[in-house]
Amino acid sequence: MPESWVNPAESLGADLHLELTGPGSRRAALIRALRDSIRSGRLAPGTRLPPYRSLAADLGLARNSVADAYAELVAEGWLSARQGSGTRVAHRAQPPAPTRAPAPHASANRPPHNLLQGQPDAASFPRTAWLAAARRALTAAPHDAFGPGDPRGRPELRRALADYLARTRGVRTDPERLVICSGFAHALRLLLPAVLPGPLAVESYGLAFHRHLLATAGLRTHPLGVDEHGAQCEELTSHDDTKAVLLTPAHQFPLGVPLHPDRRAAVINWARESGGYVIEDDYDGEFRYDRKPIGALQGLDPEHVLHIGSVSKSLSPALRLGWMALPDRLVDAVLEAKGEREAWAGVTDQLTLAEFLTHGSYDRHIRRMRQRYRRRRDQLIDAVAAHAPHLTVTGIAAGLHAVLQLPDGADESVERTALRAAHRHGLALDALSGYRHPQATTAPRHGLVVGYATPSDSAFPGALEALCRALAHLG
Amino acid sequence: MPESWVNPAESLGADLHLELTGPGSRRAALIRALRDSIRSGRLAPGTRLPPYRSLAADLGLARNSVADAYAELVAEGWLSARQGSGTRVAHRAQPPAPTRAPAPHASANRPPHNLLQGQPDAASFPRTAWLAAARRALTAAPHDAFGPGDPRGRPELRRALADYLARTRGVRTDPERLVICSGFAHALRLLLPAVLPGPLAVESYGLAFHRHLLATAGLRTHPLGVDEHGAQCEELTSHDDTKAVLLTPAHQFPLGVPLHPDRRAAVINWARESGGYVIEDDYDGEFRYDRKPIGALQGLDPEHVLHIGSVSKSLSPALRLGWMALPDRLVDAVLEAKGEREAWAGVTDQLTLAEFLTHGSYDRHIRRMRQRYRRRRDQLIDAVAAHAPHLTVTGIAAGLHAVLQLPDGADESVERTALRAAHRHGLALDALSGYRHPQATTAPRHGLVVGYATPSDSAFPGALEALCRALAHLG
Repeated sequence: MPESWVNPAESLGADLHLELTGPGSRRAALIRALRDSIRSGRLAPGTRLPPYRSLAADLGLARNSVADAYAELVAEGWLSARQGSGTRVAHRAQPPAPTRAPAPHASANRPPHNLLQGQPDAASFPRTAWLAAARRALTAAPHDAFGPGDPRGRPELRRALADYLARTRGVRTDPERLVICSGFAHALRLLLPAVLPGPLAVESYGLAFHRHLLATAGLRTHPLGVDEHGAQCEELTSHDDTKAVLLTPAHQFPLGVPLHPDRRAAVINWARESGGYVIEDDYDGEFRYDRKPIGALQGLDPEHVLHIGSVSKSLSPALRLGWMALPDRLVDAVLEAKGEREAWAGVTDQLTLAEFLTHGSYDRHIRRMRQRYRRRRDQLIDAVAAHAPHLTVTGIAAGLHAVLQLPDGADESVERTALRAAHRHGLALDALSGYRHPQATTAPRHGLVVGYATPSDSAFPGALEALCRALAHLG
Repeated sequence: MPESWVNPAESLGADLHLELTGPGSRRAALIRALRDSIRSGRLAPGTRLPPYRSLAADLGLARNSVADAYAELVAEGWLSARQGSGTRVAHRAQPPAPTRAPAPHASANRPPHNLLQGQPDAASFPRTAWLAAARRALTAAPHDAFGPGDPRGRPELRRALADYLARTRGVRTDPERLVICSGFAHALRLLLPAVLPGPLAVESYGLAFHRHLLATAGLRTHPLGVDEHGAQCEELTSHDDTKAVLLTPAHQFPLGVPLHPDRRAAVINWARESGGYVIEDDYDGEFRYDRKPIGALQGLDPEHVLHIGSVSKSLSPALRLGWMALPDRLVDAVLEAKGEREAWAGVTDQLTLAEFLTHGSYDRHIRRMRQRYRRRRDQLIDAVAAHAPHLTVTGIAAGLHAVLQLPDGADESVERTALRAAHRHGLALDALSGYRHPQATTAPRHGLVVGYATPSDSAFPGALEALCRALAHLG
């Protein structure tokens, strides 16, 4: 092998990406190259330069040439050298102004009080327990965990989830029928229309983002009425072409009622008779406060119900981890849609969540958050009763949000007035109308959706106070 | 608030999801419920049951009833109680056999020696340094990091990447023009056709997976010839409708040559004159062994080149983290394609990578791996020279793979013979033909693509030996 192939010290200089070109000595070229790199911002203030011995070896220069170049640039003010911390790019050497103005921080235009639904308290993420689980998980993981991933997801996580979902949600599955994904929206993207063609029945109240996602996938949707017993599943038989139905059985979103046992039976019957599928969005199934637990619909018929969950409400939406418990017949099609290798869910969080579940940390966290959210919900109910007795608080037995129903006869204009009042009091929250399916035929409901889990514990009292002041104006 | 709403101890029993129904006493019902849960596998062997005091409070039973029920089930063999570790589900209580047979482990059908290209050594993932960075990053992160994510990606990571890419690859960008994604394939999915419509010029040798992805997105592709100077960019002008070109300038994939300076100039000219864009796939730009560093093409014209990179080759494909440095005009369109919130890249790995970069751990890891891979590459060259001198090793100055070119006159049947010989020696590797664009017009090349980074350090010598034995048969 020719000698010139081997140049083991090239690495450092290469990392600096210096090109020694132009007139004059190589020393002068090095000075020029370093200066340009600093001026252009490619070498950021504070960056440590390699020891001059290494850089000399990298670039094939005499050691003294590099030492001289460094000294020269220190003299010029481009570099600074301090005993013990090596030579660094000086802080007065400014990088050029970015060509693009920094985007306003997401919170910049947001009102100070946030009661938008859909988020757990971000301040409560269990950092210490999560890091401890990460340490145990990454230390124990086999080497091949860091190779290309199985599109099913890590077996450690699927085993832990199968146990957890059986124990707490009554889900009947096994690790081979679980597929990991990046969250509920990713699950919908994988399923529709590749695995389940439309049309799809949906609840007449639901998340606009999901409706948008289904429309983008080219699916037609039939809205099902929603009343105090949840989705009117008996309507499923009125459209012969419905291939699947998307439901929130544990806690109708956003109205907050559980699906009545008769309706649960009706939707299972429909699926069996028509060969259709039920997509169960178990978005906040862990959070129940004062009613008997309601098991997952999937437990009634694992071959007709797809159970989908995630950590977005229980831990953080920023983790991007979810799962599907699938009917056996659909597993291969979902894996086909996902591709040959795991392209989405990162391995470190998958392994960490597995450890977090098996170690009992997930149960402890859920228990702690359940107590915290129940306390907030009780405060919300008390405050509304005291300050806005004309409003009815519903959907309160479970979940991370409640609905403040406006008095009978209120219409969208009252909702808009309420939202404007909230905004004047520095409060972000949603009205019910935004959740209504545009083709819904049932009578519209009017009210406010209050996400009481969203603020931190320290911010919640202020948000509640702002809400009461805004509602008092309405009275 | 009615008293019945508050039931603070319900949580534990709820987690067990027990329904006390049926004939007989409540104690009998509890025994039945626990037994069914264990028999059905919903309570897995080893699961710890709550202390009987808690469960009694949860279910509204007398404490003695729960204690009796536990004792009964211990007597029956369903539970086991041991001093200090509480009551657990006994290990002899088997869950039912899964309805779906476990999928064969991915490695089950794989030959013992793996020289397939495209993967870094999975055994070399820097677990300790990564965990240390995770600890620092998660401890320092603001609370809102655990709320819904900015679709650009975490600002900490974009700042760290802007510095790193400027320093090591000559990329000219800023944090506002960087967008985080799950890897190169995710970047292509976001860009094509939503941001960049086709047709797209591609290199006539490339990854079949990328061609498949482009075809699925409904894009037509025009293959550019590839010779010893890289992609023949002067051909770009022969198709007037070409909107963008996908290139691997630093190290043509899989042939391994860098794009010649004249060709670099030609492609930039084409983009400026036609208003087209260049997608730069910088898949292994950090790994150079014995040639001058070649800066990113993007540095020549940040407003016409999209620079895309990831940690898939440098750290692990299992992390699912990549980035795009975008022309200013395309940033909003990419964010629109990505959606209102980060739906893909997990926050913990984003924060950890930012810390890993700024702390110098990334540079250290790259340096270590560069030395390791260079050593393997040298061994590969020596071994081929000694055992199969009729083969020419090319594409060796950089990257994680080399091409063993078959002698002139060899055709696909010789390639197939070589692959069969490799398979007989327990070796997985690819032939060049699989990388050729089906509409390529340049003369086909024949050879083997050897991923020398894939095995662990301990497995590499065996893989190399198997390769030599297989090639000797060919001679």
